[in-house]
Amino acid sequence: DKGDKVTKHQHLRYNPLRDTWVLVSAHRMKRPWAGQVEKPPEEHIPRYDPRNPLCPGNTRANGEVNSDYDSTFIFENDFPALQPDAPDPGSDQHPLFQSKAARGICKVMCFHPWSDVTLPLMKKHEVLKVIDKWAGLVEELGTKYPWVQIFENKGAMMGCSNPHPHCQVWASNFLPNEPALSDRCQRAYYKKHGEPLLLQYARQEAEKKERVVVENSDWLAVVPYWATWPYQTLLLPRRHVLRITDLTTGEREGLADIMKRLLTKYDNLFEISFPYSMGWHGAPTGTHLKEDNSHWHLHAHYYPPLLRSATVKKFMVGYEMLAQEQRDLTPEQAAEKLRNLPEEHYKTREN
Amino acid sequence: DKGDKVTKHQHLRYNPLRDTWVLVSAHRMKRPWAGQVEKPPEEHIPRYDPRNPLCPGNTRANGEVNSDYDSTFIFENDFPALQPDAPDPGSDQHPLFQSKAARGICKVMCFHPWSDVTLPLMKKHEVLKVIDKWAGLVEELGTKYPWVQIFENKGAMMGCSNPHPHCQVWASNFLPNEPALSDRCQRAYYKKHGEPLLLQYARQEAEKKERVVVENSDWLAVVPYWATWPYQTLLLPRRHVLRITDLTTGEREGLADIMKRLLTKYDNLFEISFPYSMGWHGAPTGTHLKEDNSHWHLHAHYYPPLLRSATVKKFMVGYEMLAQEQRDLTPEQAAEKLRNLPEEHYKTREN
Ligand SMILES: O=P(O)(O)O[C@H]1O[C@H](CO)[C@@H](O)[C@H](O)[C@H]1O
Ligand SMILES: O=P(O)(O)O[C@H]1O[C@H](CO)[C@@H](O)[C@H](O)[C@H]1O
Repeated sequence: DKGDKVTKHQHLRYNPLRDTWVLVSAHRMKRPWAGQVEKPPEEHIPRYDPRNPLCPGNTRANGEVNSDYDSTFIFENDFPALQPDAPDPGSDQHPLFQSKAARGICKVMCFHPWSDVTLPLMKKHEVLKVIDKWAGLVEELGTKYPWVQIFENKGAMMGCSNPHPHCQVWASNFLPNEPALSDRCQRAYYKKHGEPLLLQYARQEAEKKERVVVENSDWLAVVPYWATWPYQTLLLPRRHVLRITDLTTGEREGLADIMKRLLTKYDNLFEISFPYSMGWHGAPTGTHLKEDNSHWHLHAHYYPPLLRSATVKKFMVGYEMLAQEQRDLTPEQAAEKLRNLPEEHYKTREN
Repeated sequence: DKGDKVTKHQHLRYNPLRDTWVLVSAHRMKRPWAGQVEKPPEEHIPRYDPRNPLCPGNTRANGEVNSDYDSTFIFENDFPALQPDAPDPGSDQHPLFQSKAARGICKVMCFHPWSDVTLPLMKKHEVLKVIDKWAGLVEELGTKYPWVQIFENKGAMMGCSNPHPHCQVWASNFLPNEPALSDRCQRAYYKKHGEPLLLQYARQEAEKKERVVVENSDWLAVVPYWATWPYQTLLLPRRHVLRITDLTTGEREGLADIMKRLLTKYDNLFEISFPYSMGWHGAPTGTHLKEDNSHWHLHAHYYPPLLRSATVKKFMVGYEMLAQEQRDLTPEQAAEKLRNLPEEHYKTREN
């Protein structure tokens, strides 16, 4: 039957958001793993550490003192990749040596005053506060910049150098590669099919159910049909929404609910604080605010690196870098595994 | 001056092979690193290990016994991501749920009978043997398959699970994403400028010199103008060559020479066996052998993960995955550093 065909033999799947294909080789999970194992995430983090530059009241690298915050806390990155006033590099105009000015701003947002919590362990009203601040930052920086990238690197495995719960916001005077590609794909789909790609996709997945991980009346979290990372998910509103700033109060509450549930399942998968990189994609801002962006649909991508256990990740290396991304279990297998996990966090169950 | 502008402030550079941009933020090297450190590569590997499935005469997972080889050794991957006879998955034809059959073959090639050598430590005539076998595999598999991907994952950091010197060859009945994109870009460039993109590029870099790491009369290794990984390099023949099978005996000897020199510099950078993923891109094969592929130019990409030291890598995470790749030193700085390293391997110097 069809299920057998896709779990026992490799095949290709199309990613309509990036116009690429992924190689799905589910039979590869059978091979033994003798390669690198990661250090499992640190489980005992002090609530307050006097040397941690993200804790309330502490002094950062540049000498600035954090406020004694009791909710979220936003400040400018002390080592920003994007600065507002970089000079034009002056291209030599040869088509093989093109450069351009890049200007922008990098902010950091702490989610909570405590270092020993993460989003799934925070209260719903505290997560809601994070969502409101995300929208506030897109509102504020979006008046000036065409792209405001909100992203969270969670866990040392994802290059995160501080266990304190936080995310980053990098706003730029250019549309970066990934949103530019996504914009092209969504635009072409809308033109051809008369409906936003991801709105149609959300409806289809809500009906099919096989890739749904969690859902509520406003939101849907699925392992996308074209997922590349083993437990990658896509978080989508059911209503057509262009930007995070357009979410109603009810939708923000629903988002806090689904985020807590999705991230609890992630943590429960291997009973560790699950590492990932996540980020929001919505219609571009700045001068694009005045354009018709109906082809866009707000969504968040979650890219977690782990494959087999708390310490064995998927290496996206040789073949993936040089040729094409390849996955070792089907998206349906991943979704089923996540769906069947309890919605109570393993840490609160223990107590 | 211009040098100051690009090392002190961020800017964008265009990658004409992928039609993407990279954010270069050289001033970011100033930030301190408090994040994950990797285990340095194992330095004491036994020449022969009775339990290593890649050593001569040993038995592999599937019960097959390796020949008592004394040079290179090629066999079929015991856990192949691509099999020759996978069934058609049968797409449901909805544009958001497209799948396709994927068929192919995966081979492994050991470079040498000893586990304690790597390409830079092998003799030139031994490296030449590897090159001849690469060409042989492309010749053989290329009669049937449109794409033959030769790649080497070196080091545990790059997901390599066996220290024995080896590479992989995955041939497929489809053109994977990366070569498909590269094909499009090279074709468009050729059409517009009447010359192969990479041939023109090699000539320009040979003149400019600032990004050259090593060169000889037939080859050039540069940190490309648009490099994303800190010490990424691009290896190019000076003559217009479409495929590895087209290299003359002299060019193969020159390739063995430049590979040894480049990889020695890599090892000397942090005085460890330098991890990387590398692979060859040349004109497609199979039915494409009969087409005009003059826009193609053979090249190898080297993607090494390390940034600061033997144990601190560059994390391509949140912003890179969601928005755009970002680098922390300029390609010119990386090239200069590599260029100034000795051409004698730190291990042979020690003795
Ligand atoms: O086949 P190997 O060497 O065991 O596996 C390695 O290379 C493959 C091809 O790049 C990757 O898919 C794997 O994630 C990696 O661990
Ligand atoms: O700014 P951070 O958190 O120190 O740095 C982390 O995220 C950045 C944005 O994804 C990456 O460029 C860095 O490689 C990573 O270590």
